Amino acid sequence: MKIRIGILGYGNLGKGVESAIRQNPDLELAAVFTRRAPETVKTASEGVRVLSADALETVQDEIDVLVLCGGSATDLPVQTPLYARHYNVIDSFDTHANIPAHFAAVDQAAREGGRVAVISCGWDPGMFSLNRLYADCILPDGKDYTFWGRGVSQGHSDAIRRIEGVADARQYTVPVPEALEAVRRGETPELTTRQKHTRECFVVAKEGADKARIEREIVTMPNYFSDYDTTVHFISEEELLRDHAGLPHGGSVIRTGKTGLCGEHTQVIEYSLKLDSNPEFTGSVLAACARAAYRMSKEGQSGAKTLFDIPPAYLSAKSGEELRAHLL
Amino acid sequence: MKIRIGILGYGNLGKGVESAIRQNPDLELAAVFTRRAPETVKTASEGVRVLSADALETVQDEIDVLVLCGGSATDLPVQTPLYARHYNVIDSFDTHANIPAHFAAVDQAAREGGRVAVISCGWDPGMFSLNRLYADCILPDGKDYTFWGRGVSQGHSDAIRRIEGVADARQYTVPVPEALEAVRRGETPELTTRQKHTRECFVVAKEGADKARIEREIVTMPNYFSDYDTTVHFISEEELLRDHAGLPHGGSVIRTGKTGLCGEHTQVIEYSLKLDSNPEFTGSVLAACARAAYRMSKEGQSGAKTLFDIPPAYLSAKSGEELRAHLL
Repeated sequence: MKIRIGILGYGNLGKGVESAIRQNPDLELAAVFTRRAPETVKTASEGVRVLSADALETVQDEIDVLVLCGGSATDLPVQTPLYARHYNVIDSFDTHANIPAHFAAVDQAAREGGRVAVISCGWDPGMFSLNRLYADCILPDGKDYTFWGRGVSQGHSDAIRRIEGVADARQYTVPVPEALEAVRRGETPELTTRQKHTRECFVVAKEGADKARIEREIVTMPNYFSDYDTTVHFISEEELLRDHAGLPHGGSVIRTGKTGLCGEHTQVIEYSLKLDSNPEFTGSVLAACARAAYRMSKEGQSGAKTLFDIPPAYLSAKSGEELRAHLL
Repeated sequence: MKIRIGILGYGNLGKGVESAIRQNPDLELAAVFTRRAPETVKTASEGVRVLSADALETVQDEIDVLVLCGGSATDLPVQTPLYARHYNVIDSFDTHANIPAHFAAVDQAAREGGRVAVISCGWDPGMFSLNRLYADCILPDGKDYTFWGRGVSQGHSDAIRRIEGVADARQYTVPVPEALEAVRRGETPELTTRQKHTRECFVVAKEGADKARIEREIVTMPNYFSDYDTTVHFISEEELLRDHAGLPHGGSVIRTGKTGLCGEHTQVIEYSLKLDSNPEFTGSVLAACARAAYRMSKEGQSGAKTLFDIPPAYLSAKSGEELRAHLL
């Protein structure tokens, strides 16, 4: 009997979860739920039901785990507590500062509903967080660094698109090589925002738009760009589609710590990702978390969880014996 | 109230556990147990009791977790099941092929004793295993690579020391840079043993020994060297002590996988370690596992466990709230 997964929201992330489910024989995609008109949504997989999100009021018996693929700004703060009352749910809530409040709201709902809700799955938060945690436990006397990129930031790309005269844009976050190398060597520099990452923008201007003004508005934009060294390249729409269609990303979590009676030895732990497709990788993490949520729910657990609370073996389709024999 | 740790065996690893305990304010070193005459053992920490291993028959109430710091060849197969009947125990059993049998023996003893026994902690097995597991869950359609080094292999150093005419030796395991880079680029080459690692030996010959014969015996030694490209450098004892006194190690676990409807995207996950001191890093992992074992035992769990079974948060001295607020 396969674990029946529902997906709410069929954008890039929902499609990433769908393709991950196809790679895991113990999971099956039971239905896609959408706030759009269901007949306008065509899934990549044959024979998958597409239902209105309203149908979630009535199909509790047909879905073992519901994977919420909405955004962190407005969708998930509402959806995760709402659906955690009736479903085991997974989300990728990634507004770091609001995680404690989100966890509390989801925890209450999931406990009342007797369901398991795993929040903030993906790679950051998610796999990067896990590696920050493990490294912090092993090297308590140490310092953490997280570098992102080279990769497309959707939020920064959207911010550029909102500038007048911009037809389309793609923004890459790029770690500063010298900073990354210094940390990898075991040094523990104090790095400003500007010293850690640069931002590279590829912009399609509308016909007749003032490119000098657009560039100025980008590089001086508070929060998004003003604290970084930002370069802006104006390109044609054809070039954007040809050279910047993908959603690659990645980065590194590095912890440098001291051990020994007098802190005389330096130890460096690094976890790094090089991703051709950010949403497919995130979707793959969500699929593994769905398996774990199902198991924890079967055991009678309930409430909000994060990857910090999940015994790693619960994420795997393999048995304990197989894991110990082949991966330990 | 601190978690009271006992250490059995005060060699490099035992000393590594001792220095790790000093970095973790919630842990305290309650006693060191030794098979040597206790009065001949002087701990680095002041005021720590050194007791005969025989005392373990009577001090159950004074030790919350016993960390076994013996070797995998002969010590741990006996010690871990023996002491798991009376103590929560941690070991670093690392003979990969024998892990299933060791787990079974320890599991039975720990269940009968109502204790928690975490086996095969360290970095490989241990953190490398965990990263193989996580990566396998996320990228089921993929291929794993483990590279070790550059670092000192104690087993290979010992093998050289057993050759007639050798006074002392240090062997470094070195990953082949081209192989490592190919895997990091996302390629999935089939690599022979020889293509993955080389072995570099620094040997102090006894006065008048036949160096040509020693070198021949090293490079042709089955299992240890004959499958590798091995270089041998004869050096003086002074040079060995000056340049090769440390026990550095490290390596990388890399998994390359395909995602997407047609496997069209390549994703690369890498976990890597650069360790100035192998025993201190291993000791630090064991100390974190001791904390987790104590917690699992307090919850009423028993039996053999590995890092695969431990919710990551159990390894940390920090609360769930702190972890979610600062590391997620």
